[in-house]
Amino acid sequence: MKLWQKDTNVETEIEQFTVGRDPEFDLQLAAFDVLGSLAHTRMLESINLLTEEELALVQTGLKSIYASINAGTFAIEPGVEDVHSQVELELTRKVGEAGKKIHSGRSRNDQVLLDLKLYFRDELKNTVEQVQTLFVLLQAQSETYKNVLLPGYTHLQVAMPSSFGLWFGAYAESLVDDMEMLLAAYKIVDKNPLGSAAGYGSSFPLNRQLTTDLLGFESMNYNVVYAQMGRGKSEKIVSMALASVAATLAKMAMDLCLYMSQNFGFVTLPANLTTGSSIMPHKKNPDVFELVRGKCNKLQALPTEVSMLLINLPSGYHRELQLLKECLFPAFATLLDCLQIMAFILPQLQVKQDILKDEKYKYLFSVDAVNAQVLAGLPFRDAYKKVGESIENNSFEVPDAVTHTHEGSINNLCTDQIKVQMDKVISQFNFEKVTKAYEALLA
Amino acid sequence: MKLWQKDTNVETEIEQFTVGRDPEFDLQLAAFDVLGSLAHTRMLESINLLTEEELALVQTGLKSIYASINAGTFAIEPGVEDVHSQVELELTRKVGEAGKKIHSGRSRNDQVLLDLKLYFRDELKNTVEQVQTLFVLLQAQSETYKNVLLPGYTHLQVAMPSSFGLWFGAYAESLVDDMEMLLAAYKIVDKNPLGSAAGYGSSFPLNRQLTTDLLGFESMNYNVVYAQMGRGKSEKIVSMALASVAATLAKMAMDLCLYMSQNFGFVTLPANLTTGSSIMPHKKNPDVFELVRGKCNKLQALPTEVSMLLINLPSGYHRELQLLKECLFPAFATLLDCLQIMAFILPQLQVKQDILKDEKYKYLFSVDAVNAQVLAGLPFRDAYKKVGESIENNSFEVPDAVTHTHEGSINNLCTDQIKVQMDKVISQFNFEKVTKAYEALLA
Amino acid sequence: MKLWQKDTNVETEIEQFTVGRDPEFDLQLAAFDVLGSLAHTRMLESINLLTEEELALVQTGLKSIYASINAGTFAIEPGVEDVHSQVELELTRKVGEAGKKIHSGRSRNDQVLLDLKLYFRDELKNTVEQVQTLFVLLQAQSETYKNVLLPGYTHLQVAMPSSFGLWFGAYAESLVDDMEMLLAAYKIVDKNPLGSAAGYGSSFPLNRQLTTDLLGFESMNYNVVYAQMGRGKSEKIVSMALASVAATLAKMAMDLCLYMSQNFGFVTLPANLTTGSSIMPHKKNPDVFELVRGKCNKLQALPTEVSMLLINLPSGYHRELQLLKECLFPAFATLLDCLQIMAFILPQLQVKQDILKDEKYKYLFSVDAVNAQVLAGLPFRDAYKKVGESIENNSFEVPDAVTHTHEGSINNLCTDQIKVQMDKVISQFNFEKVTKAYEALLA
Amino acid sequence: MKLWQKDTNVETEIEQFTVGRDPEFDLQLAAFDVLGSLAHTRMLESINLLTEEELALVQTGLKSIYASINAGTFAIEPGVEDVHSQVELELTRKVGEAGKKIHSGRSRNDQVLLDLKLYFRDELKNTVEQVQTLFVLLQAQSETYKNVLLPGYTHLQVAMPSSFGLWFGAYAESLVDDMEMLLAAYKIVDKNPLGSAAGYGSSFPLNRQLTTDLLGFESMNYNVVYAQMGRGKSEKIVSMALASVAATLAKMAMDLCLYMSQNFGFVTLPANLTTGSSIMPHKKNPDVFELVRGKCNKLQALPTEVSMLLINLPSGYHRELQLLKECLFPAFATLLDCLQIMAFILPQLQVKQDILKDEKYKYLFSVDAVNAQVLAGLPFRDAYKKVGESIENNSFEVPDAVTHTHEGSINNLCTDQIKVQMDKVISQFNFEKVTKAYEALLA
Repeated sequence: MKLWQKDTNVETEIEQFTVGRDPEFDLQLAAFDVLGSLAHTRMLESINLLTEEELALVQTGLKSIYASINAGTFAIEPGVEDVHSQVELELTRKVGEAGKKIHSGRSRNDQVLLDLKLYFRDELKNTVEQVQTLFVLLQAQSETYKNVLLPGYTHLQVAMPSSFGLWFGAYAESLVDDMEMLLAAYKIVDKNPLGSAAGYGSSFPLNRQLTTDLLGFESMNYNVVYAQMGRGKSEKIVSMALASVAATLAKMAMDLCLYMSQNFGFVTLPANLTTGSSIMPHKKNPDVFELVRGKCNKLQALPTEVSMLLINLPSGYHRELQLLKECLFPAFATLLDCLQIMAFILPQLQVKQDILKDEKYKYLFSVDAVNAQVLAGLPFRDAYKKVGESIENNSFEVPDAVTHTHEGSINNLCTDQIKVQMDKVISQFNFEKVTKAYEALLA
Repeated sequence: MKLWQKDTNVETEIEQFTVGRDPEFDLQLAAFDVLGSLAHTRMLESINLLTEEELALVQTGLKSIYASINAGTFAIEPGVEDVHSQVELELTRKVGEAGKKIHSGRSRNDQVLLDLKLYFRDELKNTVEQVQTLFVLLQAQSETYKNVLLPGYTHLQVAMPSSFGLWFGAYAESLVDDMEMLLAAYKIVDKNPLGSAAGYGSSFPLNRQLTTDLLGFESMNYNVVYAQMGRGKSEKIVSMALASVAATLAKMAMDLCLYMSQNFGFVTLPANLTTGSSIMPHKKNPDVFELVRGKCNKLQALPTEVSMLLINLPSGYHRELQLLKECLFPAFATLLDCLQIMAFILPQLQVKQDILKDEKYKYLFSVDAVNAQVLAGLPFRDAYKKVGESIENNSFEVPDAVTHTHEGSINNLCTDQIKVQMDKVISQFNFEKVTKAYEALLA
Repeated sequence: MKLWQKDTNVETEIEQFTVGRDPEFDLQLAAFDVLGSLAHTRMLESINLLTEEELALVQTGLKSIYASINAGTFAIEPGVEDVHSQVELELTRKVGEAGKKIHSGRSRNDQVLLDLKLYFRDELKNTVEQVQTLFVLLQAQSETYKNVLLPGYTHLQVAMPSSFGLWFGAYAESLVDDMEMLLAAYKIVDKNPLGSAAGYGSSFPLNRQLTTDLLGFESMNYNVVYAQMGRGKSEKIVSMALASVAATLAKMAMDLCLYMSQNFGFVTLPANLTTGSSIMPHKKNPDVFELVRGKCNKLQALPTEVSMLLINLPSGYHRELQLLKECLFPAFATLLDCLQIMAFILPQLQVKQDILKDEKYKYLFSVDAVNAQVLAGLPFRDAYKKVGESIENNSFEVPDAVTHTHEGSINNLCTDQIKVQMDKVISQFNFEKVTKAYEALLA
Repeated sequence: MKLWQKDTNVETEIEQFTVGRDPEFDLQLAAFDVLGSLAHTRMLESINLLTEEELALVQTGLKSIYASINAGTFAIEPGVEDVHSQVELELTRKVGEAGKKIHSGRSRNDQVLLDLKLYFRDELKNTVEQVQTLFVLLQAQSETYKNVLLPGYTHLQVAMPSSFGLWFGAYAESLVDDMEMLLAAYKIVDKNPLGSAAGYGSSFPLNRQLTTDLLGFESMNYNVVYAQMGRGKSEKIVSMALASVAATLAKMAMDLCLYMSQNFGFVTLPANLTTGSSIMPHKKNPDVFELVRGKCNKLQALPTEVSMLLINLPSGYHRELQLLKECLFPAFATLLDCLQIMAFILPQLQVKQDILKDEKYKYLFSVDAVNAQVLAGLPFRDAYKKVGESIENNSFEVPDAVTHTHEGSINNLCTDQIKVQMDKVISQFNFEKVTKAYEALLA
C-alpha cells in the first residue's frame, strides 16, 4: 500500500532501491509518529476537520497503537511503505472511515519532519543525561586522584608537573563546552514544523500554535519553506553537537591508550577488561579505549557526510533527505554506547602512584625553579637563563613540592565552580515541559 | 630574537619552515595581545610581581603600542619570532627592565590562547552584526514581495504555490538558527584561559578571576589542562558555527543561480552586476552568486580541516596547533565578504511578476483543490483520488486564489514573530560587557 | 572461544562493545579466509611445519568448508569471536590435531589483512565490470541520440548548442578516468601481506613468494611493517576510487533531476519508474535519480571517514582498524546498487526532441554566428562585437545548422577512440590470473 | 580591460569580490598559458585561421613573453582581469592585429583548463621527483640501521621485535603505493582539453590532435562536455594523490614525535634542529615533525574541500570552479616543503642503540619463544599456552637473537625488490615526452 499509489505499478527493482533501509529506521519513529497524530487530530477537531466523535475514536485508536509500540508488538508489514502508512493503516482497521481523515492538513513531508524532531529531542535528552553521568564520574575521579602527580607534556616532551586530578577534571570541563553545543542543537530541534505540509503550507485553516503547545515545543518553525529547509539543517547541527562530545571521548581514549603503553605505564586495567593476542601470550590490550577512540573519530566525519548530502540542493524537499536517517540514527546509538562503556570502565582504571620518581621526569620542575628565583627577586629572563645553565651542566635540583594554588591548578581544582557551569547549561534544556506534554497527550 | 634562544642556532631551513605564515596572521592579534598584557600586568602588580611604579611604566608603554597598532604603524620586525616577542621587545625599548618582567606567570601558550579567544570574540561579534544586517534586509524583502507568487518545488518538480515572501523569509529564519550556533561558539570562546601557562598552571599565586573580570570574560576555563585543550576545540566549534551561516548563504545562492537561469527566469540582476563571456556576446552571468555559493561551500569543509589537524593528538600543546590560524583567520574574512556582498546585491535583485501564469505551473494548485473538496465534506483520500483523475483526463481547473492563512504561510508570514526569535538569541551575547572592559583597560 | 583466551573472563559489557558488528561483516570474508588457509597450509608443508599427511587432511577439510560457504550453510556460532576462529574450529572438528597447526607462522593480523585484500580484489572486480556495463550503455545511448540537440549551459545560463550525444558520451568518458582510479586501487590491493604476522614478521622460515603465487597476487607487500601499515591505507585508496565513480554517477543524477523538472523538460521517465506524492496527485518524482545522487554524494564522504579513523595513529596495529569494515563493506554494495539501477533505468529514459525550437534558446548560436563571420575574414574581437550588437538590438538570426566537426564535438563524438581508452585501462587489471589461481587452489 | 566588456561597468564591489585572489595564482600559470598559445596558434595556421606571416609574428611575440616570464619581469597589470588577458594584451602591443586573432577557436574556459593541466603535470613531476628523493634516502637509512632493533607495538603495547631497518623501509615502501596514486592522477591530467571551448566545442574545423601532439599530451579529453567536466574532477583526483603522500609523511612524523618523547627515547635531533620554550629551559621540541604532521594532516582535508565545491553542480562551467586554484596551488607548495624538510632533517636524525636492553621490552620475544617450541615439534596452541604460563610465573627467558629470515623481515629487508617496484611505477610517467615537446615549441 502506498499513499500516493495510482494505477501504474512501480517496478520491483525501483521499489527495492528506493525503500532501502527505511523500514529499519522508521520503527524507531513509530511512537513519535503516534504522538504527532494525537496532537494533529486534536487540532483538526478544533478547526472542524474532525467531529468530536471521530476525534474520540481516533484518539482511542492511536493510544492503543502507542501501547502496542511500547509492548514491542508493532511492526511495519511487508509491502507497507513506511511507518506513517502503517500507523494510518492500523488506525483505519480499528476505527474505519475516521482513520482516513487524519492525513488532512499535513503531508508526509511535515509528518516525517515532526517525527524526526521528536526523535532527535528524545535522543538528545538521552545523550545529555549520559554526558552528565560521565561528567559526575570524571569529577569524582578528579577529586579522588588529586594528589597523584603525572608528567605534563608539551610537544610530547616532558614539560611540567600535572596530576590525575587535573587530567580527569579537564575532560569533565570539556563536557561543559560540549553541553553548550548539545543545547544549541536542542534549541534548534525544539521548534514545531507541523503544518508546513509539503514545504509550502496548507489551504486549511490550521492552528499551528495549538500543536506546538500540545507537543511541548518551545516554539515553531514559522515560515513553512524554512520548516522544510530544517530537514538536513537540523541533522547537520545535531551531528556537529554529537561530534563535539565524540571528540572529547576520543581524545581521552587516545591519552589512555598512550598511558597504558609500557612506555608510559601511568594506568592499567584489570585483566578481565583487556583482550589478548592470538600469537603473543603476554598481551593485555586496551581494546575498549581503542574502539571508543575509533568510533568517536568516525563520528567526527558525520557532519561531513551530512554536508555532502545537502550541498547545492535547491530549496524544497528531495528524496535523498531520507538517507539522513541512516547517518544520524546509528550515530546516536554509537555515541551512547561509548559514553556508557566509558562510565563502566573508568571506575576500574588503576592509577599508578609515584610516577614522577623516575629520573626522566626531573626537569618537570624547571619552571617552578625559575619562578622560585623570580619570587626571590630575579627578573624572569635572568632566572630562566640561570636555570637553563643549571640544566646544561647537570646541577639542577628538584624542588621539594608542587605549590600551584591559583584557580584551576593542581592544588585548587575548582571542581565546584566547574559543576556550577555545567548545571547552568543543563538548566536551560527544559525536558520537563516535554514530559508533561506527552503525559497530557496520552492521558 | 627568540624568547627561548640558547646558544645553538636553528638552521635557516628549519626556521623558514617552522615560522611559515605566522607573522601574517600574528599582526591581526597585536591589539589583543596588548589588551591581554594590560590586564596581566595589573594582575601581576596585585600579587607583587610588579611594583606600582613598574606597572605605571608598563601600562603607559603598552597603551602607546596599542595606539601604534590602531594607527597602522606597528609591524613585526624581520627576525622577531612572533607578535608576543615584538610587543615585549618594543615595550622593553620604551620602559627598560620593567618590560622584561611582564612574561612572569604566563607562557606563550596561554598568551596566544588568550589572544585567540579575544580575536574570536571580536570576529564573532562582527559576524553576528553582519548576519543581523542581512536578516533585517531579508525580512524587508520578504514583506515587499509577499504577494509575488512563485512555484514551490519538491523533487525539483512543480508542487505547490509559494511566494517570494516565503522564500526571502525562509532564509531570514534560517539565520535565526545559525545565530544559535554563533551563540554557542561565543559562549565557549568567552572564557578566560590566561593563567594556564604552558597548560599545567603556575607556581605563582596568580589571580585568574581578576584578569577574567578585567578582560570582560563571562567566566574562565578553570582547569588549566582543559584551558590548553581549548586550543583547537574552540576553533572547531567556531568553524562549525561559521559553516552553519555559510550553508544558509550557499543554499540561497544556489536557488538564485537556478532562478536566474533562462529555464526559471524568476529573478534578474541589472547588467552592471553580472559578468559576460569571452566568446558568447549574449551572456549575463550571476558570478557573484556562484562565488558566494562556492566560497560558502568551501567554508563547510572547515570543520573537517580543523578536525583532521586535531584528531588523535594526545593532550598537551603541539606545534601544529599554530596552523589553525591559517584555517580560521581567512574563514572569518571570507564569510564577512559573502555576507556583505549579499547585503549589497540583494536589494538590486529584480523579481519577476506573474510567474504562475505560465501553463506549466497549473498543477501547483492541485492540493488546494483537494483541500477545497475536503472542506466541502469529502474524505481526504477520496478527494485526492478525484483531483488525480481530473488531472489525468485534463479537466483540472485552477482555483481562483491562494488562501493560505495559518502561521508561516503565504498570507501570514509571521515576520514579527521570527524577529522576536532573532532578538531573543542576540540579546544573550552581551557584547557591551566587553566594550566596557576594554574602555576601562585603555583608560 | 577466543584464540587468546587465558584464565580471566572478559566482562559481557566489554565483549558486546568490542565485537560490535564484526560477525555480520566477517561472514563476507569467509570464502577468502579459506582460500588464504589453502595457500598458507601448502606453504607450511613446504617448510615442514605440516607433514604431507596433515596437509592432505587439512586441504580436504578446508575445501569442504569452502563448499559449505558457497552453499550458504556456513555460519559464525554464537560465542565464536570471528570468522578466522570459526573456520579453525570447524576444521579441527573435521580433521583433529592437524587443524590446530594451521595458525603457525601467521597472526590474526596478517590473516585478516589477507582476507581483506582478497575481498577488496573481488569487490573491485565486480565494480569494474559494472562500470564497464554502464560505460557500454552510455556509449550506445550517446550514439542513439547523437542528433538530438540540447542547450549547453555555462553559469546555468543558456550558452551554446549541445546534444544528448555529447551528454551521454561525456559521462561514458568520465568513467574512463574513474577506471584509472580503480586500477590504482587494484594495483595497491593486489600485493600479498601474508607472512607479516602481527606486523613484525616471524621467526619461522616462511616462503612468502609461494603464497603470493598461489593466491594469484601480482607482488607482495615486502616490508612486514609496511604490510600492516597497508591496513587502513588500502581502505583509504579504495574509498577514493569508489568516491570517483560515485561522483560521476551523482553528477549525472543531478543533471537528470534538473532535466526532468518541468522547467527544463528535456527527459521523462515512464510513470511506473517514478513515485507520487501523498498530497499532490499530479506528481511524478524522479526518486531513483535523487537517491542515486544522495547515495553517491554520501559515498564521497567515505575517504574522510576513513581518514578520521587513521589520522595520527602511530605505526602498528590498533583495534579500531576493525571498524574500517563497516565503512567499506556497505560502500561497495551501495555503489554496485547505484551502478545497477542506472543501467536498469537509463534505457527507459525518454528523450525529448526539438528542445531548441523554444525561443529562449535562440542565443545558443551566437558563438557560431561569430565564428561564421571570422571564417568570412573578420578579426574575432570585431565579429564578437558585431554579433553582440545584433543581440542588443534584436536583429540576431539563428544559423541554419550546427556544424561542429572537430574531435569530440557534436558531429564527431569519437565514441570509438574513447572506447579504446577504456579498453586500454581495463586490459591492465589481469583478473584472469586470480581466477586461475583460485581454480588451482580449489582443484 | 575585460575580454567580455560591453558598455556597462561592473560595480567596484562586485569586481573586487569576483576577482579575489586570482591574479596571485594566475601568475603561476603564465608560462603555461604561453606554451598553450604557441601550440594553439600553430594549429590555427594549419586550418587557415592565421596566415603564415601572422603565425611567425605571433610565435616570436609569444616566445619573447615567455622569456620575460622566465626572467621574472612579467606581471599582471592592475585592471587586467587575468593572465590570459595580460598575455593577449602584451602580444597585441608587440605584434598588432595578428595578436587579436589568437583567441579564435578557443574560449577562456578551455584555455584555463589547458593551463591548469599543464601546471598540474609540472607540479606532479616535481612531486614525483621529490618523493623519489625521499624514497632513496629512506631506503639508505633502512640499510644503515638494519641491525638496530626497536620494540614493535600493537595496540601501543610492546609486542614483538622490530628494527630501524624495518621502520625506515616501511615508509619507503609506503611511497611506492603513493606513487601509484600520483601515476593515476598524472594519467588523468595528461589529456588535452584544448578545443572544448566553453565546454561545447567549436564550429571552427579545429585540429585537436595537432595541439595534443605539440603539447606532448598522451591523449586528449575527446568529448568536449567531458573536457569541461574535467575541471574539478582533475583537481579532486590530484588532491587525493597528494593526500596519499601526505598521509605517509604525517604518519612518519607522528611516529617520530613519539619516538623523540622521553618516554620512548628512540631517536634524537641535534639541538640546532629543535626549538625551545619561552618558560621551560630544558625543552628541545621536534617542531619540524609536528608541523610536517600538521601540514600533512591538513592536506588530507583537501579532497573534502574540493568535493564540497563540486557536489551537485550540474554539468557545465560555473564561476566558483575558479576557487579551486586556491585549494590546489598552495597544497602543491606545502607538500613539496614537507618532502624537502624531511629529506633535509632525516639524515641528521640520531638513532639510539641497545634500546631493547630495557627490562620492559623483555616480552617482545615471546612469539619467537613460542615458535622455537613449535619448530621443536610442539603444536602451536600448546606452545602458546606454555610460554604464556612462563610469563605469568616470571620464568620467561629471552632468546639469544632475532632470526627472522623470510621476505621483508628483520634480516631480509628486500630493499632491492622494493626499489624494483618503485622503478616500475616511475617508468610509466614519461616526463621526457613533455620536455621534448616544450623544447620543440620554444625552438
